[in-house]
Amino acid sequence: MKAQIDSGEWSIGDRIPTEAELSDQLEVGRNTVREAVRALAHTGLLEIRQGAGTFVRSSSELGGALRRRLKRSELRENFEVRRALELEAARLAAVRHTEEDLDTIDRALGERTSAWHARDMQAFVEADFAFHKAVVAATHNSLLIELYDDIAQAVYSSIAHMVYEETPETATEEPASDHQRLAEAIRAGDTERALREAACYLDDLVNQAAASS
Amino acid sequence: MKAQIDSGEWSIGDRIPTEAELSDQLEVGRNTVREAVRALAHTGLLEIRQGAGTFVRSSSELGGALRRRLKRSELRENFEVRRALELEAARLAAVRHTEEDLDTIDRALGERTSAWHARDMQAFVEADFAFHKAVVAATHNSLLIELYDDIAQAVYSSIAHMVYEETPETATEEPASDHQRLAEAIRAGDTERALREAACYLDDLVNQAAASS
Repeated sequence: MKAQIDSGEWSIGDRIPTEAELSDQLEVGRNTVREAVRALAHTGLLEIRQGAGTFVRSSSELGGALRRRLKRSELRENFEVRRALELEAARLAAVRHTEEDLDTIDRALGERTSAWHARDMQAFVEADFAFHKAVVAATHNSLLIELYDDIAQAVYSSIAHMVYEETPETATEEPASDHQRLAEAIRAGDTERALREAACYLDDLVNQAAASS
Repeated sequence: MKAQIDSGEWSIGDRIPTEAELSDQLEVGRNTVREAVRALAHTGLLEIRQGAGTFVRSSSELGGALRRRLKRSELRENFEVRRALELEAARLAAVRHTEEDLDTIDRALGERTSAWHARDMQAFVEADFAFHKAVVAATHNSLLIELYDDIAQAVYSSIAHMVYEETPETATEEPASDHQRLAEAIRAGDTERALREAACYLDDLVNQAAASS
C-alpha cells in the first residue's frame, strides 16, 4: 500500500479501495489489511473518515511527521528554518539550474506580477509560493525540496492573512523587483548575488511580520 | 505511550513494560495495547525485538521519519541540507548565545583538540559532532536543533570512515583553528564573520570528501 502511495498510483485526496477489495487484491486477510491501514493512518499517509472511507492524506511519511511537528513550533522557528533552506537553495540554484528551471521561475514571476496588478491577493500568494518552490526545485536536491515544501507551506499559511490584510493600493514599489533580481542572479550563475538577493527579501519579510504583529 | 516517550519517562533504549503490564496500567484491553505498540513501531518510535521485548528506538516521530528518509537520499543531498542549517545556525548563534552555550562550545573544542593530539579519531569525531551540535543549540530554535541532529548524524556516519582512514600524522595544521575562529565570531556576536567561518570549514569538508572519493 505504501508503494502505491510512493509511486503516485494513489494520489493525495484519493479514496482507497475498501478493506474487502484490498484483501482480495493483495491476497491477505482482512485483519492484516485493517492493521496496515491503521498503521498508515497513524503515520499520516492515510486518513480514515468514518462512514466515507479511507483517503490518501500525504504522499510522504516525512511530510506527515514534519507537518505535525511544525504545528508545535513557533512561526519564528519555522521561518528561520525556511530561511536556512532558502538561502542555500538560492546558492545551489545559481549553480545547477536548467533552462526549464529558469522558464518555471519566470512563469511564476509573471503570474505573481499579474496577480498583484489585478489585486488578487490569493493568486498573488499562490504565485509567490510557486516562485519560491521553483527556485528550490532548481537545486535538484530531493531532500531539500521535500523539507522546504512543508516548512514553507507552514510559513505561508501563517503569513497569508498578513498579505490579505495589507492594502495593496498604498504600496508604491512593484513587489516583483527583489524576486526579479534573485531570478537574474540565478540565471547569471552568480552564487554571491543570489544569496544576497534571497537574504534581502527574507529579511524584508521578517521586518514586515514584526511590524504587523 | 507517546506522551511517555515525549516526556522522556521512557528514554531511547529502554525496554517498555509488557503488553499485560501496559494493559493493567492504562486500563485498556490487550488488543488495544498491541495495536498501539505496532503503530508506534511503524512510525519508528518503538522497536519490537522478537523474544526480547519492545524498546524505545527514537524520541520523536519526526526523527524516525527523517532517518528513514535520509537513507534514501545521497550523501551530497544530506550534506547540502546540513550546510543550509549550519550556516543559519552560525548566524543565529552569534545573536542568541548565552554564557552557558559558549561554555559548552568551548568544552567541545577542548575535547576535540585533545583527541586530535592523542590521535584518538573516534573521540575526535565525537567531540567534533558535539561542537557542531553546541553551535546549533545556541540558536535556541527547537525545530532547527531537531532537524540538524538527524541530518548531521547521517553525514557523520558517512564521513567517519574518511576521518578514520586519514593519517593524522601527515596533517600539519592544527585542526581546531577554523572551529576556534567560528567560536570567537559567535562570542563576539559577529554574524557576518560567523557565517564566513562556518562556510569556510563546510567548503573544506566538501573538498576533502571530493578528494578522497
